[in-house]
Amino acid sequence: MVVVMQRTASQEDLEAVVNRLRELGFATHISRGVERTIIGAVGEKTIDQLQRLEAMSGVERIVPILQPFKLAGREFQPETSQIQVGNVVFGGQMIPVIAGPCAVENEKQLFETADHVKKAGASMLRGGAFKPRTSPYTFQGLEEEGLRLLAEARRRTGLPVVTEVVNPRDVETVIQYADMLQIGARNMQNYTLLKEVGMSRRPVLVKRGLSATVEEWLMAAEYIMLAGNENVVLCERGIRTYETQTRNTLDMSAVAAVQELSHLPIVVDPSHGTGKWRYVTPMALAAVAAGADGLMIEVHCRPEEALSDGPQSLRPEVFARLMERLAPVAKAVGRTL
Amino acid sequence: MVVVMQRTASQEDLEAVVNRLRELGFATHISRGVERTIIGAVGEKTIDQLQRLEAMSGVERIVPILQPFKLAGREFQPETSQIQVGNVVFGGQMIPVIAGPCAVENEKQLFETADHVKKAGASMLRGGAFKPRTSPYTFQGLEEEGLRLLAEARRRTGLPVVTEVVNPRDVETVIQYADMLQIGARNMQNYTLLKEVGMSRRPVLVKRGLSATVEEWLMAAEYIMLAGNENVVLCERGIRTYETQTRNTLDMSAVAAVQELSHLPIVVDPSHGTGKWRYVTPMALAAVAAGADGLMIEVHCRPEEALSDGPQSLRPEVFARLMERLAPVAKAVGRTL
Amino acid sequence: MVVVMQRTASQEDLEAVVNRLRELGFATHISRGVERTIIGAVGEKTIDQLQRLEAMSGVERIVPILQPFKLAGREFQPETSQIQVGNVVFGGQMIPVIAGPCAVENEKQLFETADHVKKAGASMLRGGAFKPRTSPYTFQGLEEEGLRLLAEARRRTGLPVVTEVVNPRDVETVIQYADMLQIGARNMQNYTLLKEVGMSRRPVLVKRGLSATVEEWLMAAEYIMLAGNENVVLCERGIRTYETQTRNTLDMSAVAAVQELSHLPIVVDPSHGTGKWRYVTPMALAAVAAGADGLMIEVHCRPEEALSDGPQSLRPEVFARLMERLAPVAKAVGRTL
Amino acid sequence: MVVVMQRTASQEDLEAVVNRLRELGFATHISRGVERTIIGAVGEKTIDQLQRLEAMSGVERIVPILQPFKLAGREFQPETSQIQVGNVVFGGQMIPVIAGPCAVENEKQLFETADHVKKAGASMLRGGAFKPRTSPYTFQGLEEEGLRLLAEARRRTGLPVVTEVVNPRDVETVIQYADMLQIGARNMQNYTLLKEVGMSRRPVLVKRGLSATVEEWLMAAEYIMLAGNENVVLCERGIRTYETQTRNTLDMSAVAAVQELSHLPIVVDPSHGTGKWRYVTPMALAAVAAGADGLMIEVHCRPEEALSDGPQSLRPEVFARLMERLAPVAKAVGRTL
Repeated sequence: MVVVMQRTASQEDLEAVVNRLRELGFATHISRGVERTIIGAVGEKTIDQLQRLEAMSGVERIVPILQPFKLAGREFQPETSQIQVGNVVFGGQMIPVIAGPCAVENEKQLFETADHVKKAGASMLRGGAFKPRTSPYTFQGLEEEGLRLLAEARRRTGLPVVTEVVNPRDVETVIQYADMLQIGARNMQNYTLLKEVGMSRRPVLVKRGLSATVEEWLMAAEYIMLAGNENVVLCERGIRTYETQTRNTLDMSAVAAVQELSHLPIVVDPSHGTGKWRYVTPMALAAVAAGADGLMIEVHCRPEEALSDGPQSLRPEVFARLMERLAPVAKAVGRTL
Repeated sequence: MVVVMQRTASQEDLEAVVNRLRELGFATHISRGVERTIIGAVGEKTIDQLQRLEAMSGVERIVPILQPFKLAGREFQPETSQIQVGNVVFGGQMIPVIAGPCAVENEKQLFETADHVKKAGASMLRGGAFKPRTSPYTFQGLEEEGLRLLAEARRRTGLPVVTEVVNPRDVETVIQYADMLQIGARNMQNYTLLKEVGMSRRPVLVKRGLSATVEEWLMAAEYIMLAGNENVVLCERGIRTYETQTRNTLDMSAVAAVQELSHLPIVVDPSHGTGKWRYVTPMALAAVAAGADGLMIEVHCRPEEALSDGPQSLRPEVFARLMERLAPVAKAVGRTL
Repeated sequence: MVVVMQRTASQEDLEAVVNRLRELGFATHISRGVERTIIGAVGEKTIDQLQRLEAMSGVERIVPILQPFKLAGREFQPETSQIQVGNVVFGGQMIPVIAGPCAVENEKQLFETADHVKKAGASMLRGGAFKPRTSPYTFQGLEEEGLRLLAEARRRTGLPVVTEVVNPRDVETVIQYADMLQIGARNMQNYTLLKEVGMSRRPVLVKRGLSATVEEWLMAAEYIMLAGNENVVLCERGIRTYETQTRNTLDMSAVAAVQELSHLPIVVDPSHGTGKWRYVTPMALAAVAAGADGLMIEVHCRPEEALSDGPQSLRPEVFARLMERLAPVAKAVGRTL
Repeated sequence: MVVVMQRTASQEDLEAVVNRLRELGFATHISRGVERTIIGAVGEKTIDQLQRLEAMSGVERIVPILQPFKLAGREFQPETSQIQVGNVVFGGQMIPVIAGPCAVENEKQLFETADHVKKAGASMLRGGAFKPRTSPYTFQGLEEEGLRLLAEARRRTGLPVVTEVVNPRDVETVIQYADMLQIGARNMQNYTLLKEVGMSRRPVLVKRGLSATVEEWLMAAEYIMLAGNENVVLCERGIRTYETQTRNTLDMSAVAAVQELSHLPIVVDPSHGTGKWRYVTPMALAAVAAGADGLMIEVHCRPEEALSDGPQSLRPEVFARLMERLAPVAKAVGRTL
């Protein structure tokens, strides 16, 4: 950590800060410049414990040097983690494709879609039973009935199932049905929920918050890992910007950033990332070329009747064509679907 | 709602959309332009139910016309709501000032700060017992012990107390101690929690999400109100932008926007809104001039020792001076502190 | 400046960086931490010249310590500058209000509006003769004819005139008519234009770029000042965010930030800042309470016929009422209109 | 266009708006809903001319239906344009790669880099002679001497040259040396400059503004095309967001959006788009997979000595390796380098 003193700081101010740092167990190194004096502080404390030094007299600002995450960091574990979900592995040479409807609506819709995505080559099935919706007047999900249908769809297709959990009280129930738990974007900083899924050992897919930095996102993973569950996969799903042509702005460079900073596998969701089905195919191809460790894609047999997110869902035949186009791109970057 | 057809849409596409709208109970009006045909659809359905029409052949986009909120809207109730918390009223001619530490740290810190803010003229006491923190390695709050201290501070000073609730399971406990529940920015779209506080009748302070639109924020209020609790006060606390000079960008115009769209009172938190104590006084003065129905300000006796958010906390003497400066501005806009 | 070395940096990497810093004339101080070694570098070089060190082997990142601006900085000149435009002073105890139409459309429109704003108490007249418009199909301004009309309106009312210049070639012409030159938001980083107005001595109003940081904005002022023109006034006019309820997000805290970092006066434009005339009055009141050194407000006699920005223009009677409401707020913060 | 009337609008308000629309030459269709009346207006006027109707009594808002661009739109020309620059074509089956240093620094630096990128397979050479820099204290470019060196580098390598023009007065000079003119991000809304390059016939590369929407970007192209120059190529180079891990957020979905809305070719610049050389290779691969019509990449022989943008420049050997990896990805999506 570096403490930058104000230009007008007195010698007393400087000494007070140095003394305080030493009390906190830090070694200090002072650099006196023409316009500013800075103090390099070497020690074990977290940034957070030091931020408050900014309130001391004569301090201009605190510059953190270390990254705030540990367990999720690539410095902690240099090799990319391989996270197993049923027979599927995230973080290896193969690139799993998770596909299915935004929400589980009924048996027919789910089974039909599941059969289609299985046939087209998907590795996992997605489908929401608990839906966090912006409006209380819209479809909120089938809840446990939805979970039951997902489990049946797994029996039918052999595809492992991922589904979102929104309430800490439901974690135990969802675990009975799902192979992987999803933390949705709106809950990425719902720390109660993160700790709860951290206490299970079920793999967790952590979607990036709507306006989360990569660092905050890794801190969400850190919460889960610190609670004991190291089976974390990250999912980029677009961030909020001023652009309105797309529902969100898919941050493709987050694939490179996560792979530099963390050992956790990263999946890309071009459906939420763009909000427009016409953009899903090019962004899925791009994600694989960029080195993503997986894809998550919304598929619906009749998007115009979907109870949520119809405009971003692929029809089964479009999804099948995407799978065909993905294979050579995966191969071109040394991977397989 | 307006459906905009693609330039290349066929007569069959148009008829299919019109038929579908009629099935859904809409009256339709067609306007044929040189480049686009649009369909005005008049009916009761929510936007969400219609968004999926975007997936129909020939449809370019759906333009919603009505606002998605009802109970929270000024059209539903033209008069500004007056929300009572103990002897304090939000939404009236008087402007309550909520003050206190970010987090309850211990008895001495809380009581000392409470005494100071009471003496300076604050109307309510704030203090966090459950702290949602970005890092799992930082202080997470005293939990129920913190609540107990808050209740004692209330007895001591007579100030009603507001504190954050982060876990649906804790709502019942928090209600036993607090006069007003706070939904923090990170939980603004934690719908499970919103529904839970909606089932109580305790007043709720809903902070704006880190990157929530005004509309999404009002939808969060709508969740609480629809669950039966109409005692909602909104709190602007800054939004996330590219600017790094401040911790967040305080959206002062949200005061005007909320007062146009909604009947709910709106409070401004310049402490989180700027993240720098030096900016708190000018922004507090500005908020009152803009017409805010309250203020929420962090005060700490020794900010350099604060366990969270030290850099944005006012020392008691700075807070006292702010209160003195606020009074004439309140008077200038026809209100009182 | 601080150089943070990678955890994996070798002793050779460290020595190479230290040697390079010394070649560049820096004194260096090394702090060896458990996880990172950092180098404090003390010297006169600009950040920019050092950024490239990031490309050296073993370097993780460069952390700048000094602000990049000099002439515009409050460290360079502790007292707020007073900038005189005709009989008007920005940066003093009085708060000038600049008012007038977005664009000069014709003699009648301009004179009528000018008479109204003069009568209501405005100190300066605004009006665009060269209009930078997003679309080439919209009104682009009356150009020199507009300048001529502005000069006539000044003779008529005695109000000094500010108008935008968009082309370096026009600076000389505009100076013949206008008392103050405006650099519009879209040209805040048009360095050719900045240098050109810097070569005159005419006061310049520098609007903040659509997504400029406070630091970049001050660097735009620095360009003008370094070219020799120290008569710079800054104007906050809203920044681009995800929020769509307002045209831009008025960054009120920029008033406090600029006043902390710079000695240049700062004016607020709530018309562009919000894009909605109904929000202009509360935001103008807030700006004065926040300590702004001036206001810039769009007024149009018939907003529904305005050739640009009608929705954000005040009718004369609304402007007159605003002026009445501003006076007591200015007084409450120790200033006058 | 659709005019949405306020809930409280009177019959007189409605009639006044309808009459005004008819005066302006519009056909009108009225849809009376339970809560709102809307007016569909069919005619030739631009949105801008109608926006001011928002200032009429009883009008809630104006919803534009048509896109504001014409010449740049895919509706105007369904086939993707092929833009020729020397022997290079943008918009065809081949994907040109533009490479070279950020700034021309001296003969040795430019020629060495040019030889390297030519050998590795680049199709065009880039290099800035006029540099728009945030700080007036940093290297501003070699100006005409830089242009002369670029022309020599072209003779040496046979690679056509693209370079930025920042001042309308310099367009004629730059045309004497360069095969393609670049409009930089900071000048995307410098309409004086856009019109000036529009009056030449030299191909223009239009970089997206730092916070420009796709629509505004296409409007910048429209300015150039309306002035008579249809040889426009677009370049995505990242947008400004809250994320600090990357210098900008590369908006990969802009490739899909531009290709849907416009017939103009689109190039991706992953160097500025990310600001970190380690992210350039994955983003270049992704851009080609997404369907980009070209790449623009910064290469420098000694990034640690670069006078600008060192941290995002590839060393020649890294660039050569990137070219090898690009070829199979291009092939996988049916294109060639």
